[in-house]
Amino acid sequence: MKISARAAGLIRDVPDFPQKGIVFKDITPLLADGAVFKEVIAAFAALCRGRGITKVAGIEARGFLFASALAYELGVGLVPIRKPGKLPCDAVCETFTLEYGTGKIEMHKDALTPADNVVLVDDVLATGGTMKAAIYLTRKLGARLEGCLFLMELGFLNGREHLDADVKALIKF
Amino acid sequence: MKISARAAGLIRDVPDFPQKGIVFKDITPLLADGAVFKEVIAAFAALCRGRGITKVAGIEARGFLFASALAYELGVGLVPIRKPGKLPCDAVCETFTLEYGTGKIEMHKDALTPADNVVLVDDVLATGGTMKAAIYLTRKLGARLEGCLFLMELGFLNGREHLDADVKALIKF
Repeated sequence: MKISARAAGLIRDVPDFPQKGIVFKDITPLLADGAVFKEVIAAFAALCRGRGITKVAGIEARGFLFASALAYELGVGLVPIRKPGKLPCDAVCETFTLEYGTGKIEMHKDALTPADNVVLVDDVLATGGTMKAAIYLTRKLGARLEGCLFLMELGFLNGREHLDADVKALIKF
Repeated sequence: MKISARAAGLIRDVPDFPQKGIVFKDITPLLADGAVFKEVIAAFAALCRGRGITKVAGIEARGFLFASALAYELGVGLVPIRKPGKLPCDAVCETFTLEYGTGKIEMHKDALTPADNVVLVDDVLATGGTMKAAIYLTRKLGARLEGCLFLMELGFLNGREHLDADVKALIKF
């Protein structure tokens, strides 16, 4: 399913954020348009249906903005993948490098089981570092990874090449 | 609409998190249950319908986990209220005190207009500091505040008393 040009047109370029030389893709105008937001979630859901998804995992924080509505639409559980120190129970952790800096993400050890079939959701595929770590954590817990969904992909960064998974992005730059 | 005891039973007490003496209410088991998550969002939506809501604003990060699905269900726009330095465009900012520490939150200046009728969403009402700041920002942008929705309320902290708004919580502790 294709996302309309109207949706892509609601992603706003912000030069020099968060640092000089980076052009940040601001999704807030897209989120603010209820009809377009619904269209985006419907497009994600269409990519998931009939594949036996049991959990949608979203990556903090902007991934939550899409993972929540997608889990709701599919009627499956929602798993938060979070920054360190935010999850209160036993967690698995992975370090990664990203477009500007490094980071760590965590998932509760009881968040997924080998019975789960998971889609991972984030807003943007840049260098792929964060999602690579999320894929690692998903498989470390024994779950099956069905695929990775992004609102948009910055194709010139070749992040897709670092992801050993089925990768789909609704909008490509 | 009442939330089932099953939903409340999926909120897990974690002693001494994030610091000694605090009993943290962990919502991840509730999120992981697709049927219960759907029930929670349906309950929020029932509180919103017929009230002319134009925007659902969620407070970073756990508020996003509910605000996204609620905005989707209502078919309205989603506004992220974020920690400082995360929003790339001109923002309004407010400082607050909370149960353990202080913080700041921000909202894009173009996120709301006087034509908007807004519900604010977060996971837990504790001392109410964060939500009080979110209410301030909403009104500073000239929008009408329809109400504040929480998954749960820690009644013993009396946070509700600090919020000059219609406050609803699905689960009370």
